[in-house]
Amino acid sequence: MGLSTRVTRLLNIDYPVVQAPMAGGITTPALVAAVSNAGGLGSLGAGYMPPEAMQKEISEVRSLTNRPFSVNLFIPERPDEVSGEVHRVNELMEPYRTELGIDTPDEVGSHAQESSEQLAVVIEERVPVFSFTFGILEADQISVLEEAGIVTIGTATTVREALALEKAGIDIITGQGAEAGGHRGTFLGDFAEAGIGTFALVPQLADALQAPVIASGGIADDRGLTAALALGAEAVQIGTAFLACEESGAHPEYKRAVLEAADDSTTVTRTFSGKPARAIRNRFLDEMEGHREEIPPYPIQNAWTKDIRDASKEQSRPEFMSLWAGQAASLSRSAPAAEVVEGLVAGAKAAQR
Amino acid sequence: MGLSTRVTRLLNIDYPVVQAPMAGGITTPALVAAVSNAGGLGSLGAGYMPPEAMQKEISEVRSLTNRPFSVNLFIPERPDEVSGEVHRVNELMEPYRTELGIDTPDEVGSHAQESSEQLAVVIEERVPVFSFTFGILEADQISVLEEAGIVTIGTATTVREALALEKAGIDIITGQGAEAGGHRGTFLGDFAEAGIGTFALVPQLADALQAPVIASGGIADDRGLTAALALGAEAVQIGTAFLACEESGAHPEYKRAVLEAADDSTTVTRTFSGKPARAIRNRFLDEMEGHREEIPPYPIQNAWTKDIRDASKEQSRPEFMSLWAGQAASLSRSAPAAEVVEGLVAGAKAAQR
Repeated sequence: MGLSTRVTRLLNIDYPVVQAPMAGGITTPALVAAVSNAGGLGSLGAGYMPPEAMQKEISEVRSLTNRPFSVNLFIPERPDEVSGEVHRVNELMEPYRTELGIDTPDEVGSHAQESSEQLAVVIEERVPVFSFTFGILEADQISVLEEAGIVTIGTATTVREALALEKAGIDIITGQGAEAGGHRGTFLGDFAEAGIGTFALVPQLADALQAPVIASGGIADDRGLTAALALGAEAVQIGTAFLACEESGAHPEYKRAVLEAADDSTTVTRTFSGKPARAIRNRFLDEMEGHREEIPPYPIQNAWTKDIRDASKEQSRPEFMSLWAGQAASLSRSAPAAEVVEGLVAGAKAAQR
Repeated sequence: MGLSTRVTRLLNIDYPVVQAPMAGGITTPALVAAVSNAGGLGSLGAGYMPPEAMQKEISEVRSLTNRPFSVNLFIPERPDEVSGEVHRVNELMEPYRTELGIDTPDEVGSHAQESSEQLAVVIEERVPVFSFTFGILEADQISVLEEAGIVTIGTATTVREALALEKAGIDIITGQGAEAGGHRGTFLGDFAEAGIGTFALVPQLADALQAPVIASGGIADDRGLTAALALGAEAVQIGTAFLACEESGAHPEYKRAVLEAADDSTTVTRTFSGKPARAIRNRFLDEMEGHREEIPPYPIQNAWTKDIRDASKEQSRPEFMSLWAGQAASLSRSAPAAEVVEGLVAGAKAAQR
């Protein structure tokens, strides 16, 4: 079977290992470059970054590696804001602000970045690989990326979504299994039924698609890489197992929570952002789950919880942080990212002998 | 790695393939014997069978094979019946009875089989392998099984449950991933957090346990067998991929629904039995999900829907059947069970070369 696949050839990388683009400051240029230098594909999670920050981080990555890397963005959603909802969410957040000693904001910031400006940076910078989640790019955007020679990776949680991405001309499809940490990439149909385990999702994607598949969700070590390739994937995408790495920008308390997590420590919740996402349960999550019907959609809820999440980091209070993590978090370890990549590759090569 | 594992040696079978014990008439003696004769472990799903029926089916299996097979039972649950609940569930079922032309029952049957009498049959018959789900046997029951030389297999959906089973002296642990069809085996903690995907569950079980692990959930073909062994399992348990087999007792409309299912056709629901279980969505499920808060616990709801499920089979109306299936249902095919086993084994052997 070998560790050379269509994905390694398309991306021009040594090993079929993609570091997941975790937005919110986790994927530091140091982490991205370390993974790329080790022969995998480092990914900058730029979903929440303004264009100038993107430019700065991309140039930092380039100062640290001359290997391929990717930048990841969100396909924007613009739900109608309902004033009653906003009033209610403000009320729900108030006790947390009091406890953290922060003021009620006069207004919450814009709900999402201007994705067209973000995409312009990707193209201008001739980033080698562009990945995205929460939907499909517009046809003209795909054309421009193609003309710029940028390889595209889309995220699917079902066969139906994967076929839609393939039809649109996306080069590689990441199948996000239900085990995965962070936001669900579901964009067609219902989130509950689209929570398909990696074990079931990958072979069905491999059967349905011409495009190569990257498996994600619950993959953390060499056993996972070997198994994913056996199921028909041509690479793996790994997030949580890079979260506790030395180069990761995750808060130390967040890293600690990941390292101490058990298999059943996580749940899928809308409480932090308004969009279903897998996180380690904590006080904020548990308390807000009691109000789940009142939570506005993404990205409105995300904007309303931002000051609380920011303050929780400043004050090192993990009970209010969004502790995104997958169901295999217990397999994570604190190590340089290059060691994680090397461990994955060495074990998978040994299994093939 | 080879296809000989601690599980094949403990069970005295040729291949690390267990046909899942699907209760309710699916695991006919012909199916059980066909799988055992092909070198796997056939399993009789006897959870709902009275003792006399168990004896009859066990003797039928023995007339068809002299290879090892297993019998599976449920650990009983006895929730308090709340009269208001019963009144309400009777009301909710009434429109379906009218549509199916069946009478309102004067009373619903006993909610569960007498499990001690069922277990007595297992011991008296010296069944080679005994498997169970929904909890842990009593210590004295485990002793009696051990003295009778019967190998025991318990079902866990989390590491915590698996450790409890191992501590109780159970020989082999089946890890039931979230992809699996039918009832969730969860017996400690919350069903949502215990919905751990097979990909994440298996390596964490393998790391935590001394006892060997059987992987279940989303495994349907040789790719799944190879992947499960790579993750640290020493056998696979396969349900849905045997459902459409020629020897399966599933209703023809149920088989058709399985063969036509997509990856996102199933959901986890309490509507049929009161206990979370994965089924293909149909009209009954969708309509009753609107009343999910009013559904009494297992096995009370199960007893109240029995006449409707029975009538739906007699009248070939799959919209009212409990169409238990896993998330890899699309990989099932209509074939003799021996062919399914042979396909699994041949492919996995080839992958090892």
